[in-house]
Amino acid sequence: MIIDIHGHYTTTPPEHQRYRDAQLARLDDPGRAPAAPADISDEQIRESIENNQLRVLRERGGDLMLFSPKASGMEHHVPDPATATDWSRASNDLVHRVTQLFPDHFAGVCQLPQTPGGPLDPSVAELRRCVEQFGFVGCNLNPDPSGGRWTGPPMTDEYWFPLYEAMVELDVPAMIHVSSSCNDNFHTLGAHYLNADTAVFMQLLQGDLFGRFPSLRFVIPHGGGAVPYHWGRYHGLAARMERPPLEEHVMRNVYFDTCVYHQAGIDLLHRVIGTDHLLFASEMLGAVRGTNPETGSGWDDTKRYVDALPLGEDERARLFEGNARRVYPRLDALLAAQGR
Amino acid sequence: MIIDIHGHYTTTPPEHQRYRDAQLARLDDPGRAPAAPADISDEQIRESIENNQLRVLRERGGDLMLFSPKASGMEHHVPDPATATDWSRASNDLVHRVTQLFPDHFAGVCQLPQTPGGPLDPSVAELRRCVEQFGFVGCNLNPDPSGGRWTGPPMTDEYWFPLYEAMVELDVPAMIHVSSSCNDNFHTLGAHYLNADTAVFMQLLQGDLFGRFPSLRFVIPHGGGAVPYHWGRYHGLAARMERPPLEEHVMRNVYFDTCVYHQAGIDLLHRVIGTDHLLFASEMLGAVRGTNPETGSGWDDTKRYVDALPLGEDERARLFEGNARRVYPRLDALLAAQGR
Repeated sequence: MIIDIHGHYTTTPPEHQRYRDAQLARLDDPGRAPAAPADISDEQIRESIENNQLRVLRERGGDLMLFSPKASGMEHHVPDPATATDWSRASNDLVHRVTQLFPDHFAGVCQLPQTPGGPLDPSVAELRRCVEQFGFVGCNLNPDPSGGRWTGPPMTDEYWFPLYEAMVELDVPAMIHVSSSCNDNFHTLGAHYLNADTAVFMQLLQGDLFGRFPSLRFVIPHGGGAVPYHWGRYHGLAARMERPPLEEHVMRNVYFDTCVYHQAGIDLLHRVIGTDHLLFASEMLGAVRGTNPETGSGWDDTKRYVDALPLGEDERARLFEGNARRVYPRLDALLAAQGR
Repeated sequence: MIIDIHGHYTTTPPEHQRYRDAQLARLDDPGRAPAAPADISDEQIRESIENNQLRVLRERGGDLMLFSPKASGMEHHVPDPATATDWSRASNDLVHRVTQLFPDHFAGVCQLPQTPGGPLDPSVAELRRCVEQFGFVGCNLNPDPSGGRWTGPPMTDEYWFPLYEAMVELDVPAMIHVSSSCNDNFHTLGAHYLNADTAVFMQLLQGDLFGRFPSLRFVIPHGGGAVPYHWGRYHGLAARMERPPLEEHVMRNVYFDTCVYHQAGIDLLHRVIGTDHLLFASEMLGAVRGTNPETGSGWDDTKRYVDALPLGEDERARLFEGNARRVYPRLDALLAAQGR
């Protein structure tokens, strides 16, 4: 089967965004009445999925997508913890309903109620709620809740440890994923996302986080940012900094997805990283929605690029399914329970 | 001939750093006597170059290097304009002396005395001094003088226009190059450099800077950061944002260098960008100094990777020489005057 590990609910019914707008309006004007999550029907959710992610998943021959709230909509830069918690819960509740309506096609990954420099307890609580009550299989973790200001500590700092402890206990990985940029220097989709991927990889190379948390697992999306393209640079830097070789250190706990939107990029990714640390993904419907004139289909139809790789049957099975089941054991259990 | 357009004076005699240290100490304690640039002999400079950059240039079959002060040493985050000007002048003076001692092998590229949010007049003045008095052929321009805090405006903002006007008038390009990171999230060599390259490319895609300055030219180093690896993403984003196609817009004025330290990366760079917008470079002795076990020579021996590309004679000549002479017309004039 073909598992796409990176999809966001970018097509929520508009009522959900109106709830968010009301939340933010109340932060500006505390005299307003508290906002309440939108009353959205199953029919609305069905329509928003069947005409979008599910349609495209089917068209491209995919079977199942790991599904999380819209990344740019997480907006962790808004500093109020209660607002962040309410917003995460509402967003995750919707994703949960998608997974209930389409259990064969979607499994849940949660947004965390992070805030810049704020406590991580709410994030731990929301992770537990989503994993234990909803059967979610992973979370998205924002390495820069300040939204492009990068005012917090690196991912190797003990600030993050309570969350890592919960992830290890629950046996769920995190995808490293920033949200909207509030910094004019960084376009959200064209700079901030990729730069965060690159920055975090280097933080992990510098530190020894996996010495402390040997079973902690991170997925670095968007093909690892700039990292595979600069693979020689990272090998050389690791040696110069007297850090262990990448294969014996960072790459024991880190995986890249295939959200790279042209053949040459996917070819490089596979040539450099191989298949053991690659997870198939497209991030549709996401940042890039036009048509690639070379293929006549979407830029983000990454299955086409992966299909063009010279893969043996085993490699193909790992890349499309096996690695995902290994990195996300709760997904494996969920599929096994479905007889898949 | 083989021109390496990206080298820094990373091996200055230690007296130069001591001058810097004294400068910074005086900023902390204004009661100290003013620091004065180090008294460095020609012999010291000769030794620092002959045993390092010139030796490696010769070993690898290169002829000439565009040479600028050490990038991480520019330290534009130090906010005092007078200190920045003194430091830039001293650093550029040393580079000028290298070009005088080894006119066949080095041509000058200057550091600018930028400060976070500070006026650009000192940078314009220093650019003029280096180009008009020293015969320098380009400059390094830091898109983030705040050193990883990214507190300033994007490169398309009119803040930068006075410098662009001077660059256009003098007909010199700028290499986009940040300096040391003061942000623990961004390792200087493993994240900040690459992320700046990526961020600036996207700023240029979003804006219309070259509509205003049609002859302005930027070199984005380190193989363009993450950009060529995510070429499909940028094509797709340009279309989605209703910006012109890359080839008809950003890529009329932007060039990438070949500072990518493994064969797969250089292969991708050439496959995606072709040869017209590529400039040969190694940034030795720079970030990455170990030995690539695949080749048995330095990771940053980029000539090996370029030599392995399937290039015709014409393409090879453009990539190693012709493009550099076109993008840096003052280099072309300087070489022509030498009969080269």
